[in-house]
Amino acid sequence: MPAPVVILVRPQMGENIGAVARAMTNFGLKELRLVAPRDGWPNRKATEMAAGALHIIQGAKVFATFAEATADIQRVYATTARPRDMEKQVLEPAEAMALMTEQQQGGWSCALVYGPERTGLENEEIAMCDTLITIPTSPENSSLNLAQACVVVGYEWWRRQGAKVPAQALPEVAPKEDWQGLFGQLEQYLDEVNYYRVAEKKVIMWQNLQTMFLRAQWSAQEVRSMRGLLRAIWEQKRKNSD
Amino acid sequence: MPAPVVILVRPQMGENIGAVARAMTNFGLKELRLVAPRDGWPNRKATEMAAGALHIIQGAKVFATFAEATADIQRVYATTARPRDMEKQVLEPAEAMALMTEQQQGGWSCALVYGPERTGLENEEIAMCDTLITIPTSPENSSLNLAQACVVVGYEWWRRQGAKVPAQALPEVAPKEDWQGLFGQLEQYLDEVNYYRVAEKKVIMWQNLQTMFLRAQWSAQEVRSMRGLLRAIWEQKRKNSD
Repeated sequence: MPAPVVILVRPQMGENIGAVARAMTNFGLKELRLVAPRDGWPNRKATEMAAGALHIIQGAKVFATFAEATADIQRVYATTARPRDMEKQVLEPAEAMALMTEQQQGGWSCALVYGPERTGLENEEIAMCDTLITIPTSPENSSLNLAQACVVVGYEWWRRQGAKVPAQALPEVAPKEDWQGLFGQLEQYLDEVNYYRVAEKKVIMWQNLQTMFLRAQWSAQEVRSMRGLLRAIWEQKRKNSD
Repeated sequence: MPAPVVILVRPQMGENIGAVARAMTNFGLKELRLVAPRDGWPNRKATEMAAGALHIIQGAKVFATFAEATADIQRVYATTARPRDMEKQVLEPAEAMALMTEQQQGGWSCALVYGPERTGLENEEIAMCDTLITIPTSPENSSLNLAQACVVVGYEWWRRQGAKVPAQALPEVAPKEDWQGLFGQLEQYLDEVNYYRVAEKKVIMWQNLQTMFLRAQWSAQEVRSMRGLLRAIWEQKRKNSD
């Protein structure tokens, strides 16, 4: 399935374009379009910042207007910090990328649009977008920088592409006979050193100890480690007291 | 509900510390701790980059070691790029922050830990963490920069703070200084009895033991029981060998 196109509208700082290109490679995004970049194109600072994402910078297409850059796109998602007073669908990144993934599976071409660093998109550009994405942030500081906004949205898109962190197999847990072996050994040591002091207390203390060990859910190997560790400490005693 | 503490371990570039502080204000995070920042502290570049997050930079606490920085924390989450070969819980940011939110509602103190820019955390530090967070990324470029990793995890945390999930009573879990006490005591015993036999094996064996104990999620009382139990076995030896 093709990744969404990333469109930066009138980006100001070359460094930010390079950082966006890098974030694109983090999340499987391939195609970058630029609408009237302020400092022209190509841009040395964008190239320097791009590092391993040079192919994205070199493949970037430049357009004069928002309309031209979105001409072949069927669904345009714009990330905006400020809410706009328009009857638009406004979604958080997670919901938006779930919806986009469905649309892409249905064969639609989709784009992620970001406005200029300080001012954001013009209202007439917003009017041409289908869906607005608002990243939930603290009221203390609601503005993310350009590349960080791309990171959050890219991350949400990538998560939905099936490329998951490999699922972890459930840990192996020792069968009860291993635990019984551990408990038998430990009980003997604790009896010999008179751990409980008061005999009546033994029952409840010993139950609590068993409970606490069982909760650890150790593997057979880990139970063996515990037994070896206790034996090492114990046998040192035996050797010295012989 | 208190936000998680952010801990940067041996951060290298001041700019990155400043960018992290800014990302913290985006997502309602308040407290920054630094372990042995490479260029000392305070750091001019961190201050310059922080912009509106100066209060976070000025309030940052500096610690000499990972252990000291996490002493009062009950649940440590480390974001790592590379998978580590340890029996640790590994979660994506969304699942991890859902779990952390539950734990915070239950009253646990939590921290988000990030290692040095290039090298990441040392294995002995990873061994002291409870949960690893891996951000799903494209194999083309799996490394996010420090502030971007903080943005993704912070975003996932913040998203969950609106949701009023009924608080669940969680078991009390010992803060890390209790575990450090247990580990210090156990390490001493095992060294004295030459538990590892082959010196080169100690590092990995010791990390595996720490991991295995931490997974048990013992309360402060249970850690004390474990220490008492070990001491009882040990001191019997001491008494007999005197």
